[in-house]
Amino acid sequence: MNIIQSLEWRYACKKFDSKKKLNKSQIDTLKKAFNLTPTSFGLQPMKMLVLDSDELKAKIFPHAYFQEQVKTCSHILVLCIDTVVNTDTIDDYFNMEKEVRGTSEEVVGAFRKQLKDIYGNMDAESIERSSIYQTYIALGNLMTVCAIEEIDACPLEGFIPEKIDEILNLNEKNLKSVLMLPVGYRAEDDIMSDMKKVRKPLKDMVIEL
Amino acid sequence: MNIIQSLEWRYACKKFDSKKKLNKSQIDTLKKAFNLTPTSFGLQPMKMLVLDSDELKAKIFPHAYFQEQVKTCSHILVLCIDTVVNTDTIDDYFNMEKEVRGTSEEVVGAFRKQLKDIYGNMDAESIERSSIYQTYIALGNLMTVCAIEEIDACPLEGFIPEKIDEILNLNEKNLKSVLMLPVGYRAEDDIMSDMKKVRKPLKDMVIEL
Repeated sequence: MNIIQSLEWRYACKKFDSKKKLNKSQIDTLKKAFNLTPTSFGLQPMKMLVLDSDELKAKIFPHAYFQEQVKTCSHILVLCIDTVVNTDTIDDYFNMEKEVRGTSEEVVGAFRKQLKDIYGNMDAESIERSSIYQTYIALGNLMTVCAIEEIDACPLEGFIPEKIDEILNLNEKNLKSVLMLPVGYRAEDDIMSDMKKVRKPLKDMVIEL
Repeated sequence: MNIIQSLEWRYACKKFDSKKKLNKSQIDTLKKAFNLTPTSFGLQPMKMLVLDSDELKAKIFPHAYFQEQVKTCSHILVLCIDTVVNTDTIDDYFNMEKEVRGTSEEVVGAFRKQLKDIYGNMDAESIERSSIYQTYIALGNLMTVCAIEEIDACPLEGFIPEKIDEILNLNEKNLKSVLMLPVGYRAEDDIMSDMKKVRKPLKDMVIEL
């Protein structure tokens, strides 16, 4: 399949075949793809949780409005923001850059200061919102990666984050859940799988100037 | 390249080869990929502008903090939100669904009412924020598609949206700019192209439960 065929193949899977599990190599690909998501200034202020326990799925289920994909999927990917983003985050980034690239502090210093100024001028809400944006980039990346790898997925904003945070003890990990992506294989009887994709005509979505 | 190799190949291109232009087939792929971006409830409350005029690039340049990628790229993709999202948007979606899938109003009616209730309970700011999230999904999708197609790209949040809206007359189109993605081919002398990718160790980014 070319990339457009892959994107047409994907859909928001509403019912997975609960007997079919993704293998370790597939999960590894999703983990690496998540970590390769481009983020604002490269700060990566987020984490991905990977869970496959039936017990956790059952606990999450009612707080995701009883959506069947949560219970029938192979794994749930939970995209979370870091609740602590501060000057240490920025220092950690530049220290890592120096280590990986061998860049000198002379070169890195101006960027380090600039980024600290930018974040210093943002209130807590703006910082959180910026981190949330990055989880949406990750979601876009992961859904496309799933399509290419022929992994079915269903993006979910529809859940009660506070409940998920409680079930997964995210507070103590300095995390907050933002998005979920159940992944696996579509069930043969998922009525959505045969439905035509609904999209606006291209001419209404793209303007060439 | 497999998908991980593609994601490792990509980077935020800081200087493009201004002599190399993307062809129509490449731009068509990006347009189609944008339109295939999954969005919340399928509403697609966004548009993509595609521009390649040197005059427009030069006008945008100072309002994108004089970042060279804006002037040297082949095309700039501008991701915008619709400023008008209301019950008509929802009706248009379900009318389109009925037409494409032949679904009856009997089936569609409950979802239509539910979605109108959800949006009816959201204030203007929440609706705008939700639309912004969708542009970030599109950005994530497009960057991955670019990587697969070996198209270089540079995601940009760093510009003054009001100025871009003015230059591109977006107000009268009921649009607001959110993100830009200059695309094209990396310049041979882009110093960033040879640099190692900086990412946190996988074990710090992914938690398996």
